[in-house]
Amino acid sequence: MSKKQNHEEELHALRHSAAHVMAQAVMEMFPGEAKIAIGPPIEDGFYYDFDLPRALTPEDLETIEARMREIVAGHHAFTRREVSADEARTMFAEQEYKLELIDGLEAGGEDEYGEPLEGEVEISVYEHDAFVDLCRGPHVGSTDEINPAAFKLLSVAGAYWRGDESRPMLQRIYGTVWESADDLEQYLWKLEEAQKRDHRRLGKELDLFSVSDEIGSGLILWHPKGGMVRKLAEDFCHAEHEKGGYDFVYSPHIGKAHLWQKSGHLDWYAENMYAPLDIEGQQYYLKPMNCPFHIEIYKSRTRSYRDLPLRYAEWGTVYRYERSGVLHGLLRVRGFTQDDAHLFCRPDQMPEEIDRVLQFSLNILRAFGFEDIHSYLSTRHPEKAAGSPESWEAPTEALREALERAEIPYQIDEGEATFYGPKIDLKVKDALGREWQLSTIQFDFNLPERFDLAYVGEDGKEHRPYMIHRALLGSMERFMGTLIEHHAGAFPLWLAPVQAVLIPIADRHHDYVHAVAESLKAEGLRVEVDERSDRMNAKIRDAQMQKVPYMLVVGDREIEAGAVAVRLRSGEDLGPMPVEDLVARMRLEIEAHA
Amino acid sequence: MSKKQNHEEELHALRHSAAHVMAQAVMEMFPGEAKIAIGPPIEDGFYYDFDLPRALTPEDLETIEARMREIVAGHHAFTRREVSADEARTMFAEQEYKLELIDGLEAGGEDEYGEPLEGEVEISVYEHDAFVDLCRGPHVGSTDEINPAAFKLLSVAGAYWRGDESRPMLQRIYGTVWESADDLEQYLWKLEEAQKRDHRRLGKELDLFSVSDEIGSGLILWHPKGGMVRKLAEDFCHAEHEKGGYDFVYSPHIGKAHLWQKSGHLDWYAENMYAPLDIEGQQYYLKPMNCPFHIEIYKSRTRSYRDLPLRYAEWGTVYRYERSGVLHGLLRVRGFTQDDAHLFCRPDQMPEEIDRVLQFSLNILRAFGFEDIHSYLSTRHPEKAAGSPESWEAPTEALREALERAEIPYQIDEGEATFYGPKIDLKVKDALGREWQLSTIQFDFNLPERFDLAYVGEDGKEHRPYMIHRALLGSMERFMGTLIEHHAGAFPLWLAPVQAVLIPIADRHHDYVHAVAESLKAEGLRVEVDERSDRMNAKIRDAQMQKVPYMLVVGDREIEAGAVAVRLRSGEDLGPMPVEDLVARMRLEIEAHA
Repeated sequence: MSKKQNHEEELHALRHSAAHVMAQAVMEMFPGEAKIAIGPPIEDGFYYDFDLPRALTPEDLETIEARMREIVAGHHAFTRREVSADEARTMFAEQEYKLELIDGLEAGGEDEYGEPLEGEVEISVYEHDAFVDLCRGPHVGSTDEINPAAFKLLSVAGAYWRGDESRPMLQRIYGTVWESADDLEQYLWKLEEAQKRDHRRLGKELDLFSVSDEIGSGLILWHPKGGMVRKLAEDFCHAEHEKGGYDFVYSPHIGKAHLWQKSGHLDWYAENMYAPLDIEGQQYYLKPMNCPFHIEIYKSRTRSYRDLPLRYAEWGTVYRYERSGVLHGLLRVRGFTQDDAHLFCRPDQMPEEIDRVLQFSLNILRAFGFEDIHSYLSTRHPEKAAGSPESWEAPTEALREALERAEIPYQIDEGEATFYGPKIDLKVKDALGREWQLSTIQFDFNLPERFDLAYVGEDGKEHRPYMIHRALLGSMERFMGTLIEHHAGAFPLWLAPVQAVLIPIADRHHDYVHAVAESLKAEGLRVEVDERSDRMNAKIRDAQMQKVPYMLVVGDREIEAGAVAVRLRSGEDLGPMPVEDLVARMRLEIEAHA
Repeated sequence: MSKKQNHEEELHALRHSAAHVMAQAVMEMFPGEAKIAIGPPIEDGFYYDFDLPRALTPEDLETIEARMREIVAGHHAFTRREVSADEARTMFAEQEYKLELIDGLEAGGEDEYGEPLEGEVEISVYEHDAFVDLCRGPHVGSTDEINPAAFKLLSVAGAYWRGDESRPMLQRIYGTVWESADDLEQYLWKLEEAQKRDHRRLGKELDLFSVSDEIGSGLILWHPKGGMVRKLAEDFCHAEHEKGGYDFVYSPHIGKAHLWQKSGHLDWYAENMYAPLDIEGQQYYLKPMNCPFHIEIYKSRTRSYRDLPLRYAEWGTVYRYERSGVLHGLLRVRGFTQDDAHLFCRPDQMPEEIDRVLQFSLNILRAFGFEDIHSYLSTRHPEKAAGSPESWEAPTEALREALERAEIPYQIDEGEATFYGPKIDLKVKDALGREWQLSTIQFDFNLPERFDLAYVGEDGKEHRPYMIHRALLGSMERFMGTLIEHHAGAFPLWLAPVQAVLIPIADRHHDYVHAVAESLKAEGLRVEVDERSDRMNAKIRDAQMQKVPYMLVVGDREIEAGAVAVRLRSGEDLGPMPVEDLVARMRLEIEAHA
């Protein structure tokens, strides 16, 4: 077992134990009235669900936390005991939720969290101090291993018993616990920072996008400012694709049922597809992927070995069904635009194509400010995979070698590649160290067979081309969500929807300010003038809230000097600067990304 | 009556008369066997439908034409006679199709072409020489008014009796007739030219786009070269929009039924919309228009008088149902991308906004090489129109004044504007003088009411904004079809998917040619190298067929001189030219359009 895994298991036991201590404190708060449900450790903390006579208040959480500190100071050992189902029923006679769990355990179908069980069934309980819980463990040895300065209760939320809307609504208390007070502080800072960076919140504050109930859940409306950032990102990528030897194609958003039958999507992807619509007695589906369309373009004429490789790129908007419950801002949506490409090449061209596409992906991700990139190589799934195990060897090796040459850290996900073929996933770490899956480069054994793709070789005979699927930013929606959170809405200058706000101090400065605005616009800069009658400081504060990179204040002194007073959104004050110098500075900053 | 109308009525009578003469010739060819159906004049000519014992051959058309010349030389007068239905039945006792038409005429519901009748019903016949036809006329006075050197039979096609698939299939002979042999020649040249320019043919030859049976009719797949032209056109328009003060928004392709109910589309546009699809019990429709989405963006926050005007632009792909029978290449499709924009402004801003949008439209159309632009101002439909007649006055006047100021020819289409409000349509004439409808600028009284749009005025109260719909190129698909036919596929340099082909004469010239290709690419030019082992002349011919603007031939002499031998697709030979001079020349040509 690795050190990291070991550490995670220790944290797991610590969090599980804190959940028990919290449950004890809550039971003592409502003697004879508190019903306990389940209380597992989770990522970064724990929760416990309670059925209580009244709603908990923030003050209750403080009281519970204080009592928890007393309990942990009591040096109570956690002790495990195996019991029969009947013994357990006696112990939890007053606890209806536990009794239901015991029934599940006895039937051998569910564990104490109501999750399906695997392997041998045993009923065990853990006790400490005055509290006993139905529990598989593990726990720490004693309550004093829980650092009283390293835990905190965070919030209360409603949760249905067993996640079932027809069952009682319980109160779930979330808490977090770490080894040290420093770790806790670091975690709480990250939590607060993550909330500030939440792209849904920033999307509203910066007027980037919205979702309308009238239109439908999971369907994004890009507002002018968000649309500008998206367009700038797309324009940059388009230009890179052109330089990178890609061709742009466009395809429709619907296609006949027969197409999706042929591609196999109706067999293995149907649950992600919307219901069909009828046109003149034919069923059409909204496209969940662009591949079959690009394949039809490939097939529209005879291809020679000289024509390959072909690299078809499309910003293709696809629609995939997601339950409304899992939709989440830009990160989990129902309609999204992939920066999709399909490469068709000869087998001998494959290693170079993979090298190219990997380098291309890394360069683009870096241009957007993502430096910390990890990759995952998924190998053949033992069952759900097209092509023979032997046929997977060369492409898997090509992917692995490309990763080696690119000198980025990678890990192998054995047997994780299904259907098409082996693949590379690229994940980036954002400013808070959170990992986001963006790019996928996947080799495909399946579709070239299904669509009987061919090219005429130098030998005059027909051969099967190789096909590679590739989405680089992944989905524009998801990518934009990542970008917003990574930069906390303070987009780098080249992506900022408004690059500078001009702030005249008084009305008599308006003419000068508009002249400066026009000269900046003529340089291709995106500039606004804040002509409101508010005070200068209020205007600067508003521009900072809008994360505008440059605030250019103009008063009598600046006009006299033919300058603007430059302030950055960071708060830094650069003082008066001639307009030419400002333009030069902004140009340098803009060009730095590419 | 204007001179032009008069001339058109004369041509109409001439064509109608030629149809009768042709019918006489056909009846004489199959004595006692030919059944005649209908034979109207049409744009540029005439046709007649026959039920004949055998299929006609091209030689038959020549024979019929020869006999027509004999008939017209016979100086036979066309004479009109009114008859009772019974008399008519006796005259056409052997002509079952005519008998059916007589029944229709007698019932007062249909004319002799089976079209619904308006006004008084009378049965008239026209006679000349040995031929008599049920006919309202008018005709020319005598067959010798038909110039024997100015008519031609063009083709035979199948046509169902009364356009009904369950009725007999007849043979339709198409012919054309003009006043002079010169007019005929000019028309036949245009016809041939139009066939050569047919965008469906060029789309295939130049590998621009295709329609796949697997995907569905009326759904376009843009291939790399067509995609490149489209992208270049879009990029140019995007940049112009940005300069023109438009904001880019993006919206989804589906929306809830309730939205389309609210917008009124389900009331008055349902027959153009596809069947709904179901998501979690909600009905969603593919969008036939972008307007409600842009309105939702407008409504996403409170708008102040200071925020207006707002100009939301989107390249929005919409889907509209068209019967498969009327689909036609890129011109009539089921899915197309509008270069759509919606302007929201205060009433006092409206005249200036209309001026701006009209000038903007004209500038863009001109940049694409359309100089001959006509406009049509549609005024209030007496019934199918939102808003009071008085409320239409100011916007109609604003549109008219904008047209006056723009100094382009316009005509008023009285009562042709339905639903939204008054509108301007812009139509361009192409190189063959054919008119194509592209831009529409329409004022809207309807949607701001339906969606209760508001802005807060200087008075602190809520006011209703004005809204203007605007599609400039109209649909990218239709526009590209127009562009292909206008330029006969020979796109101007800035739009050419491949701007130059480099042609090495022998293998030893390859290195030099690739170096030149790289230097041209570094200048942002789109260049291909034709490395095939074919002869130089074959390569030049291929490049000309592909309408590549520049062919750059390289042999020993050119390498020695550090030059390339330049040939234009027109056939013009510019001789050897240093690469820098070539780049400068191409740059000038590219920049000329903007």
